Amino acid sequence: MALTITDVRAICTAPQRIPLVVVRVDTSEPGLYGLGCATYTQRFLTVAHAVDTYMKPLLVGKDPTRIEDIWQMAMVSPYWRNGPILNNAISGVDQALWDIKGKMANMPVYELLGGKVREGVRVYRHADGKTLEEVGDRMQAFMEDGVQVVRVQWGGYGGNAGGKMQNVNLPPEGACEGAYYDPLQYQLSVTKLFDYIRNRFGFGIELCHDVHEHLDPIEAVRLARELEPYRLFFYEDSLAPEQIEWFRIMRQQTCTPIAMGELFNNPREWTPLIAEKLIDYIRVHTSQIGGITPSVKLAHFCEAFSVRTAWHGPGDVSPVGHAANIHMDLALWNFGIQEWSGFNQASLDVFPGCPELRKGYVYANDKPGLGIDIDEELAKKFPCDERLPQWTNCRRPDGTLQRP
Amino acid sequence: MALTITDVRAICTAPQRIPLVVVRVDTSEPGLYGLGCATYTQRFLTVAHAVDTYMKPLLVGKDPTRIEDIWQMAMVSPYWRNGPILNNAISGVDQALWDIKGKMANMPVYELLGGKVREGVRVYRHADGKTLEEVGDRMQAFMEDGVQVVRVQWGGYGGNAGGKMQNVNLPPEGACEGAYYDPLQYQLSVTKLFDYIRNRFGFGIELCHDVHEHLDPIEAVRLARELEPYRLFFYEDSLAPEQIEWFRIMRQQTCTPIAMGELFNNPREWTPLIAEKLIDYIRVHTSQIGGITPSVKLAHFCEAFSVRTAWHGPGDVSPVGHAANIHMDLALWNFGIQEWSGFNQASLDVFPGCPELRKGYVYANDKPGLGIDIDEELAKKFPCDERLPQWTNCRRPDGTLQRP
Amino acid sequence: MALTITDVRAICTAPQRIPLVVVRVDTSEPGLYGLGCATYTQRFLTVAHAVDTYMKPLLVGKDPTRIEDIWQMAMVSPYWRNGPILNNAISGVDQALWDIKGKMANMPVYELLGGKVREGVRVYRHADGKTLEEVGDRMQAFMEDGVQVVRVQWGGYGGNAGGKMQNVNLPPEGACEGAYYDPLQYQLSVTKLFDYIRNRFGFGIELCHDVHEHLDPIEAVRLARELEPYRLFFYEDSLAPEQIEWFRIMRQQTCTPIAMGELFNNPREWTPLIAEKLIDYIRVHTSQIGGITPSVKLAHFCEAFSVRTAWHGPGDVSPVGHAANIHMDLALWNFGIQEWSGFNQASLDVFPGCPELRKGYVYANDKPGLGIDIDEELAKKFPCDERLPQWTNCRRPDGTLQRP
Amino acid sequence: MALTITDVRAICTAPQRIPLVVVRVDTSEPGLYGLGCATYTQRFLTVAHAVDTYMKPLLVGKDPTRIEDIWQMAMVSPYWRNGPILNNAISGVDQALWDIKGKMANMPVYELLGGKVREGVRVYRHADGKTLEEVGDRMQAFMEDGVQVVRVQWGGYGGNAGGKMQNVNLPPEGACEGAYYDPLQYQLSVTKLFDYIRNRFGFGIELCHDVHEHLDPIEAVRLARELEPYRLFFYEDSLAPEQIEWFRIMRQQTCTPIAMGELFNNPREWTPLIAEKLIDYIRVHTSQIGGITPSVKLAHFCEAFSVRTAWHGPGDVSPVGHAANIHMDLALWNFGIQEWSGFNQASLDVFPGCPELRKGYVYANDKPGLGIDIDEELAKKFPCDERLPQWTNCRRPDGTLQRP
Repeated sequence: MALTITDVRAICTAPQRIPLVVVRVDTSEPGLYGLGCATYTQRFLTVAHAVDTYMKPLLVGKDPTRIEDIWQMAMVSPYWRNGPILNNAISGVDQALWDIKGKMANMPVYELLGGKVREGVRVYRHADGKTLEEVGDRMQAFMEDGVQVVRVQWGGYGGNAGGKMQNVNLPPEGACEGAYYDPLQYQLSVTKLFDYIRNRFGFGIELCHDVHEHLDPIEAVRLARELEPYRLFFYEDSLAPEQIEWFRIMRQQTCTPIAMGELFNNPREWTPLIAEKLIDYIRVHTSQIGGITPSVKLAHFCEAFSVRTAWHGPGDVSPVGHAANIHMDLALWNFGIQEWSGFNQASLDVFPGCPELRKGYVYANDKPGLGIDIDEELAKKFPCDERLPQWTNCRRPDGTLQRP
Repeated sequence: MALTITDVRAICTAPQRIPLVVVRVDTSEPGLYGLGCATYTQRFLTVAHAVDTYMKPLLVGKDPTRIEDIWQMAMVSPYWRNGPILNNAISGVDQALWDIKGKMANMPVYELLGGKVREGVRVYRHADGKTLEEVGDRMQAFMEDGVQVVRVQWGGYGGNAGGKMQNVNLPPEGACEGAYYDPLQYQLSVTKLFDYIRNRFGFGIELCHDVHEHLDPIEAVRLARELEPYRLFFYEDSLAPEQIEWFRIMRQQTCTPIAMGELFNNPREWTPLIAEKLIDYIRVHTSQIGGITPSVKLAHFCEAFSVRTAWHGPGDVSPVGHAANIHMDLALWNFGIQEWSGFNQASLDVFPGCPELRKGYVYANDKPGLGIDIDEELAKKFPCDERLPQWTNCRRPDGTLQRP
Repeated sequence: MALTITDVRAICTAPQRIPLVVVRVDTSEPGLYGLGCATYTQRFLTVAHAVDTYMKPLLVGKDPTRIEDIWQMAMVSPYWRNGPILNNAISGVDQALWDIKGKMANMPVYELLGGKVREGVRVYRHADGKTLEEVGDRMQAFMEDGVQVVRVQWGGYGGNAGGKMQNVNLPPEGACEGAYYDPLQYQLSVTKLFDYIRNRFGFGIELCHDVHEHLDPIEAVRLARELEPYRLFFYEDSLAPEQIEWFRIMRQQTCTPIAMGELFNNPREWTPLIAEKLIDYIRVHTSQIGGITPSVKLAHFCEAFSVRTAWHGPGDVSPVGHAANIHMDLALWNFGIQEWSGFNQASLDVFPGCPELRKGYVYANDKPGLGIDIDEELAKKFPCDERLPQWTNCRRPDGTLQRP
Repeated sequence: MALTITDVRAICTAPQRIPLVVVRVDTSEPGLYGLGCATYTQRFLTVAHAVDTYMKPLLVGKDPTRIEDIWQMAMVSPYWRNGPILNNAISGVDQALWDIKGKMANMPVYELLGGKVREGVRVYRHADGKTLEEVGDRMQAFMEDGVQVVRVQWGGYGGNAGGKMQNVNLPPEGACEGAYYDPLQYQLSVTKLFDYIRNRFGFGIELCHDVHEHLDPIEAVRLARELEPYRLFFYEDSLAPEQIEWFRIMRQQTCTPIAMGELFNNPREWTPLIAEKLIDYIRVHTSQIGGITPSVKLAHFCEAFSVRTAWHGPGDVSPVGHAANIHMDLALWNFGIQEWSGFNQASLDVFPGCPELRKGYVYANDKPGLGIDIDEELAKKFPCDERLPQWTNCRRPDGTLQRP
């Protein structure tokens, strides 16, 4: 009897306090199932709804080995497409189908993608703090662990989230609620931070910085130039997705390497940037573009233009999604760097088989498929907080709502 | 006491068999509420989930008069944005807030947008049929009603959906399920259709045609050229959103007017097309881009480049959404044409205050706000069919999944 | 003990009279080996030399599952790269490694590439003849077999190879040896041919034509326009690889679909054509660009620009290479059409497991790997003719050497 | 009786340990023969195979005076073209035919190319070393010999080939074999090197540097900017041939003069770079593009865009090839500089008539043809090492294979 999909369902859990969504796809072969990441933390319940309400009836009875056909069908079945809710639902299924295919082949997924092209996956870690010393001390701890690339931020993204920075212009009378930040203070603080870090550690360590789309475009260009003496590894998310044409102007003005893309959902966002060689690292959140299938295609497309991958790897990617990233990182030639947020013990317990960080490199285990499982009973002990995120309600001192 | 939002909820109903989603926003002032369209038929349950789960807690307690601030906040609150599920949820709220503001001003919404610039809204109607005669007869009926622009299609979109066309190449061995169509037969049929229509009715009537993104890009260019002798009013959705760069090539080769956009969700889809003057009519589904607020801005942007509006107006827009379109059509100077699908009696009953078609023009009523209400008790009598759409699972004769 | 490559060797055979090169890669696991196509008929002995002299020592002892790493290493090991001899040698190895991986996974290669997205592979066949009737009769025979796309040529490529055409201007005194052709007679003959074919068969059959890079660029543009009324499926190899910038001019002037690429060896040949959307079908000879690994990447790159594949499939591809093409055709979503030359009985005997043509579609068998083997004893009975090809020594009437 | 070619054969020898390939073409006139360089060290046996197996039967019986016709025919005879093996084989013949024609005219080849436009050929020499002092000392020795331009490298190409540099990040667990290098350490070392050299020698000497395509494109741009204060004569091979579109970005950002091209084989690699004026010096390996005939054309094309020549002149060019370069350098107006590696005594003995370096300039002798011969008996005493090159298997610390 032909192999078919028998169930598709979303599992929500938060072992690290951040809501995660994992999709499980079952098949007609007893014991043969797959897991995929569909984590869109900020709207996780709606993703889970889309999986259970639409992906399940769409896929039950279908042949799970036809990954590409299912991906294409799942994309156009809703007619409107390329948005964050539905892309994540598709990713959950897509990664689960690659997991299943790996198990059927008795091979890790990286083998299906062409085999390992490197031994370990070099990562960058995130060091922030309220004071320059705090940022520096965290950075030093990473360096002592063998980490070669560190992203440094002073006082939270944008300089003042959580009230970590002094000298912020205060809101005027009657200000709205939200996380205030001050573009001027932020800009001044960044060069100060890099000056401190390069003086303390020299140039033998690679540094990144994430603007988190907080500046006006020309300010982002200016800051990229101001950071040139500090030789960044890359300059991250300096423009909003709605502003990507500005990268042409940035490219004319600065040689600071550019990384972009965690907010991308639509090929019109990445295609021209890459084809015009306006960025150096593509940083998409792989579940946000629909899983392994489109990410491998995107990497192949990038290879034609000498753009490298730097998949988004924050705490709001599930360990299953991190495993998928690592499998791709091991097999894709034009991999550049992997953001790595690390797991707490609860995550390691809920998701047996997590990739491991050792001396600045992450390694996948060599089990079939993605090599990672979920303990659903344990997962239930870490229910998700359903409250809305507050940090995305970010405002300037005059009360103007800003991009996060 | 300050006016606040007290409730936000989605209402699903299908008086015309097509699932519709309407959002109701209540305020702290008794009797003051607004309605907005959030209709995304193909995934309507997930839109309703997003409204109830995320829009409600985000907005309850907020000031309903701050429409622009709420729109911006609702866009960036989920961090990832510009997708169909969340944009529709925002649209439902946005239109409802404009409805409320109109009621507060005791004015129709078109007054708030600058007042009427025309008396009625010229529409185009859709004529299709299994035979040329059937298409022609339906067209004749529209003409007798005063309709000045007709979209003609022979045998369903793409030529064979629903098996309406002869001579289609049959699928090979072991074909998949789905609605098959044949690009060659479709292309040959279109010029035949226009030849028939122009011979029967002459050139005193405007004609449109919708390719529904069924062709390869160069085939779409060729067909645009082949249709030149028939003088189209416009040539609609000839390319998929993922192929919009091809409009540059189309523009070099043909003077057939181009309409595009019902599938757009992301500014990167429309911004370059308009700024480069590659299209003549912008046809977005206004709830898919987030409601009245972004649609008015889009129209203003189009005016800078002499592009006109032609908002998507099919059966899968709720009467509330149609009303919103008509209010904009009355007030925006660079309005071009309005697609019009019409209402059955059930719709008229469920939605008191629908705009009316008379002799080829649609008129809004002149009540405050959008001028339209919903009878929720009656709406319940028209529950939505929750089955997945089948027509989007469209395949070529060899079994390849195609865009719809 | 780790799996390693133990031998790499070239096998030359000519069951269909055309010299073919197949590479066999053996491993340390008894019975586990793979086959790949390295066929470059015109210089087959030098390809075989490169395989035996350089690929073998480079690869013996390496891990055969690391396909991507081996491909990259084999490309840069010779420092100079992107040429026909070495690319074919790499292809032979690359396809063999995918064959091995499929056998290890107990899956057909198309499963490793994402699974089938179509049931069968639509092909085009080649109809030529000395007279219009002969071309038409051959075309009719194909149509009766269910073939949907036919490439029609009158009197050999370029009009006169083999002396099949009348009215050729004769060479002047003292002409060189070679196959003469006449650009004027050729151009005039092509529209005559299409006129005959469309009159005899109508427009319900798709037609191609191959210019075989015989014309000056502006003549090729003019001919593309002259053929517009005949609605070609595509217009093939109309410019030499050294003239590809002319496609920008061709694209401005004609909507005839363009296929290009059998002579490509270098990414600088295909990358700009695709990124600028100057062609509709990429027709590379997959062993000439280095096998399955780069061809899959190329297809993924093309998908971003809505370009389809049409891999070169003449008699100078081995059945192993045809199988590799068919496996890719089954799994790559943006497949367009497959050139198909067919096998004689000797080929079927030497290469057990050949793909099969039925009613216009080709089907792979579903055995693991590429599903095709070679009977080496039998292969020896079809030794290769080592004489130089004559048809590439092509001259104009004044004796000027032309591109083939 | 007409003069004809009677034999074409490859001679392999390694008087300087590096395998060289020279082609000898004999004619029907006793004693009239020519020599040409076909040296592609990394795959020399396959080049020799192509010469003996394909060039000989193609050319025997042909008229050796028809150099251009033979060049064109040899290019298209194999149908696929523009690759390193076949281009070198053609070069061997092409240079030999020019040698013959010079002997027939009783003139040096530079006379046939229009006569001398300069007295001697200015060269640049290569200084490297493990320490800054070592580099500086070698440079000083060159300066004392009258050399005006020196290429300086610290610790081998890329910084670590052969383990010459300290502080390289070590490979992680289970690393592959190969020559590891570290992009960060390399970049930091280059500015240190130039700082040392300019401090020691001032600005009265011209300096070059060869990146050897080791960096990511944006890093290469940044390094070009960082080197601006040191006023380079040129910045060499900073991008791989697959990345040449990046020169547009480099050109916008830096005024460091750019030299490029030793890896080029295909006109699509050099044509756009020159026509867009993206480089200042064309550095092709003249046998890799097919000999004197295409190199003269390339120089003429460069003259139209004010680009100068800087033919590749390393140890893996035979003395015959060096002689051909020098003859062109003497006659081509837009000559820029000549790389010069020098000859050991064995080379001078095996190749009587080598060009000579005196006080920073190289001079050709004034004998007919290329003025250089080969002592075949002696050549046999310097057999070629047939082992594969190891330095091209170059990897980053994580094990990723990199371009050489």
